[in-house]
Amino acid sequence: MQASSDELRRAGKRIGVVPTMGFLHEGHLSLIGIARRRADCVITTVFVNPTQFAPGEDFSRYPRDLGRDSQLVESAGTDILFVPATEEMYPAGAQTSVEVGGLTRFLEGKSRPTHFRGVTTIVAKLFLCTKPHVAVFGQKDAQQLRVIRQMARDLDFDVEIIAGPIVREADGLAMSSRNVYLSSKERAESPVLHESLLLARDKVLEGEKDAAAIVHAMTGLITSRPSAQIDYVSVADSSTLEELDTLSRGREVLISLAVRFGSTRLIDNITLIP
Amino acid sequence: MQASSDELRRAGKRIGVVPTMGFLHEGHLSLIGIARRRADCVITTVFVNPTQFAPGEDFSRYPRDLGRDSQLVESAGTDILFVPATEEMYPAGAQTSVEVGGLTRFLEGKSRPTHFRGVTTIVAKLFLCTKPHVAVFGQKDAQQLRVIRQMARDLDFDVEIIAGPIVREADGLAMSSRNVYLSSKERAESPVLHESLLLARDKVLEGEKDAAAIVHAMTGLITSRPSAQIDYVSVADSSTLEELDTLSRGREVLISLAVRFGSTRLIDNITLIP
Repeated sequence: MQASSDELRRAGKRIGVVPTMGFLHEGHLSLIGIARRRADCVITTVFVNPTQFAPGEDFSRYPRDLGRDSQLVESAGTDILFVPATEEMYPAGAQTSVEVGGLTRFLEGKSRPTHFRGVTTIVAKLFLCTKPHVAVFGQKDAQQLRVIRQMARDLDFDVEIIAGPIVREADGLAMSSRNVYLSSKERAESPVLHESLLLARDKVLEGEKDAAAIVHAMTGLITSRPSAQIDYVSVADSSTLEELDTLSRGREVLISLAVRFGSTRLIDNITLIP
Repeated sequence: MQASSDELRRAGKRIGVVPTMGFLHEGHLSLIGIARRRADCVITTVFVNPTQFAPGEDFSRYPRDLGRDSQLVESAGTDILFVPATEEMYPAGAQTSVEVGGLTRFLEGKSRPTHFRGVTTIVAKLFLCTKPHVAVFGQKDAQQLRVIRQMARDLDFDVEIIAGPIVREADGLAMSSRNVYLSSKERAESPVLHESLLLARDKVLEGEKDAAAIVHAMTGLITSRPSAQIDYVSVADSSTLEELDTLSRGREVLISLAVRFGSTRLIDNITLIP
């Protein structure tokens, strides 16, 4: 991979990378499309990264279908599909990690304390393997996007980090490889996540400045669905990810949530400027 | 710096980097000489890295003389001198670190618990700034060399790590920027460090297999100098850095020490294959 990227760079080609865990959906394909427009050569990586799953999370049952992924990435405009083996990425004796401090204390980092260390370590490695000029990550993982931007800036990665918008099903459910876990009842109730974000948006547009009132309205709507178990509903500063008490005019907020439907944990978010 | 390295790489040039904290001596110049032979373009970096000093260590008084360093690196064959400012390397809000686990629990890492996190973070950053093919580090910092090799391997840095041998004064004292701290009495007693390593070598050559006996002999010699205060004397496996009880034929050992002369802490080491 490194030799290929060196060759491309020597030839003056701009390299774009789209890191994924595979089992691709329209959301991933839209990221590949963005990379396609920003680079001469698009590398899609597929690696289900064990270090970002805690014990008891869904690493072993995470859906995998490399045959289907290969066809999808090619038709979406990928030039190189990079699928390293776990033993290549984490050989025996591996003991180095990359960690972002402040931003990872909140939201997903609070619910999944070792998650982001796994993410930043593997993304650093994938950047060093693929040597990209640009990398594209989805807005759906809003905190991940911010954490990776911070890592890239702090470590002087010469990589432009681009965000791709959330892609949704017709009924509003954000696309996710984990949606296949949902039972038909859970699937039918899951659009409430997007509905609660739209409700929050309406409140903000109506001038609501009290974060607790927004969270309260969202929580009420979500819990009206019997399968939904809230992990968190958050109104936070979009840059620092710190929880807000009061929204300020002109200061971007990230409204985000994590909700379980049975054993399936889904996340979604929206950013707004009051 | 990154744009220069990109240009050099596009032109097919091989880049060598020698990271230093400045106040250069013959030891550093020998590393530049090694880089010169292994690369088309040699970058020497000078950065006194605050994050590898603990509070109370000698960061603020660490010797600096950039004017002299500039002349020395040029005559030694450096093409580019990279001297970033502290605020460039650690801008406000920086919160990312690179950490090697296992190897850093021993020796220097035990005496200086936050030291290697600072080292690996800055070396990762300097690699990402200078984009080298090869990097040269001195054997004097034996553990640092191993920790950086581990980091480079674990994170997939496409950088060959080369070790430069220890350069010594005529009386055996390993060259170090910190030697200028020594009073004339301390300086006169400091060759005992090298003498103790030669004593250890003789013991090993004579067939001594008991690590404690080697440490005991070294300790006796070092403490015969009134200014010397031992921090540690260690006989360890050269790869894992774990302390050894018994030396094994054919298995490389790292015999290393850290000793204070007044407020000046000096380190030295030797590797041997029994």
